[in-house]
Amino acid sequence: MYLLLKMITNAQIKAITSLQEKKHRNQTNSFVVEGRKMAEELLRSDYEIINIFALNKWTLPNTSFAINKVHKNIDEKITYISEKELERISSLKTPDDVLCIVKQKKTQKINLDNQLVLALDNINNPGNLGTIIRLATWFGVKNIICNENTVDCYNQKVLQSTMGAIFHINLFYTNLYQFLQSHTSQNIYGTVLQNGKNIYNEALTNEGIIVIGNESHGISKDILQMINRPITIPCFAKENEIESLNASVACGVILSEFKRQTI
Amino acid sequence: MYLLLKMITNAQIKAITSLQEKKHRNQTNSFVVEGRKMAEELLRSDYEIINIFALNKWTLPNTSFAINKVHKNIDEKITYISEKELERISSLKTPDDVLCIVKQKKTQKINLDNQLVLALDNINNPGNLGTIIRLATWFGVKNIICNENTVDCYNQKVLQSTMGAIFHINLFYTNLYQFLQSHTSQNIYGTVLQNGKNIYNEALTNEGIIVIGNESHGISKDILQMINRPITIPCFAKENEIESLNASVACGVILSEFKRQTI
Repeated sequence: MYLLLKMITNAQIKAITSLQEKKHRNQTNSFVVEGRKMAEELLRSDYEIINIFALNKWTLPNTSFAINKVHKNIDEKITYISEKELERISSLKTPDDVLCIVKQKKTQKINLDNQLVLALDNINNPGNLGTIIRLATWFGVKNIICNENTVDCYNQKVLQSTMGAIFHINLFYTNLYQFLQSHTSQNIYGTVLQNGKNIYNEALTNEGIIVIGNESHGISKDILQMINRPITIPCFAKENEIESLNASVACGVILSEFKRQTI
Repeated sequence: MYLLLKMITNAQIKAITSLQEKKHRNQTNSFVVEGRKMAEELLRSDYEIINIFALNKWTLPNTSFAINKVHKNIDEKITYISEKELERISSLKTPDDVLCIVKQKKTQKINLDNQLVLALDNINNPGNLGTIIRLATWFGVKNIICNENTVDCYNQKVLQSTMGAIFHINLFYTNLYQFLQSHTSQNIYGTVLQNGKNIYNEALTNEGIIVIGNESHGISKDILQMINRPITIPCFAKENEIESLNASVACGVILSEFKRQTI
């Protein structure tokens, strides 16, 4: 098969690399998905793909049913480029054959009944957010609410850490305080330092909102007032050996215990 | 109080920055601890401190009993340096007032009876290793065995991710296969993809070795043969949405379930 190698223009290169910044991602309502694994997961989702830039050796993954059904005329969106060109548009140290430009998903109104929802309060570290999205998907959580200071989910490090789980979860940014204020009849769980109920003994429910706080400062003061089910993960260290767990590890331990109790 | 500001020599700068490489750390049997928080945790441990380089504004933390008892004549080991000098020796983007040169701890023979021990098989990511050390400390694990390909625990990113927990744990590197071969009478747990027992239903013990595998490839083939208690963390995602959990999250979920069952 003869592949037409189109040239990528300088204007395109500039437009693509500008998407490494949140401001430009939001202005254009788009983001970048990089690498074979992420592209494959993307193609199995219903995210709208605008462009694919790929090396000749890359071919559409053979998950064709979903691709043909959701991504119409996807072939026409592929531009084959050289390794040098890929290096110029990639943000990875080692570019991985393919880079896609994708449309962001609009915030969706969600129904919170009969399910567990995560609420993230100032998660700053991209790796933590990505890992939380990945483990939330593992534990069957479908919706994540982020306060406005939580790191952008279309940041490249976040995307890579999700291992593709980003495409299977509904995530949106909002004023978390106002959101919780309008959901005070729900169980609002959060880990607290004092007087939290031990998660191993406390009867946990199969619906409710679980607040995960900032990596260094925990749950912020105003959000803390909204917690009506304070919980805690028991610590087995000697005094003063350790103060806290990593935010994503704590989130994994908590979700695991919720699922264990309510299967 | 008048503080004598000594100069730091170029030879010292070269020697200190060379410790960013594992080879030089092992040759000199030393490593670098950076920042206020880490220095404070270090001073509460019995690690032997060789030198402290600090800005004038840094003072010994007021945990004096432990300091006087363990770290004799610690004052004499402090060299006050300028911000510019600290920048030259630091590996942090934003140097944090203090940098210590510390002696590595010799491998210690450990007694594995009556306790849970972690065995790490090719953990490559420094952040993961640090997070595992931190959560192991939280859950009361005192000993971590690493195979020889696991990332060096005195790597700066590992140290920072431990949040100081590194100073409270006994960790050593060895041939993991041979180690497990000489401990086949113990429970050797490991997460496997097929035929693992659901951790929520399986009766877990309060002693044994828990193997944590590589971030991408899981437990390696030869080590897998040594697992006599295969386990698995139930997945609640829809088919094909997600393949695995992050190694440190999986480790946290597993240790939490062990502790819950055996308190």
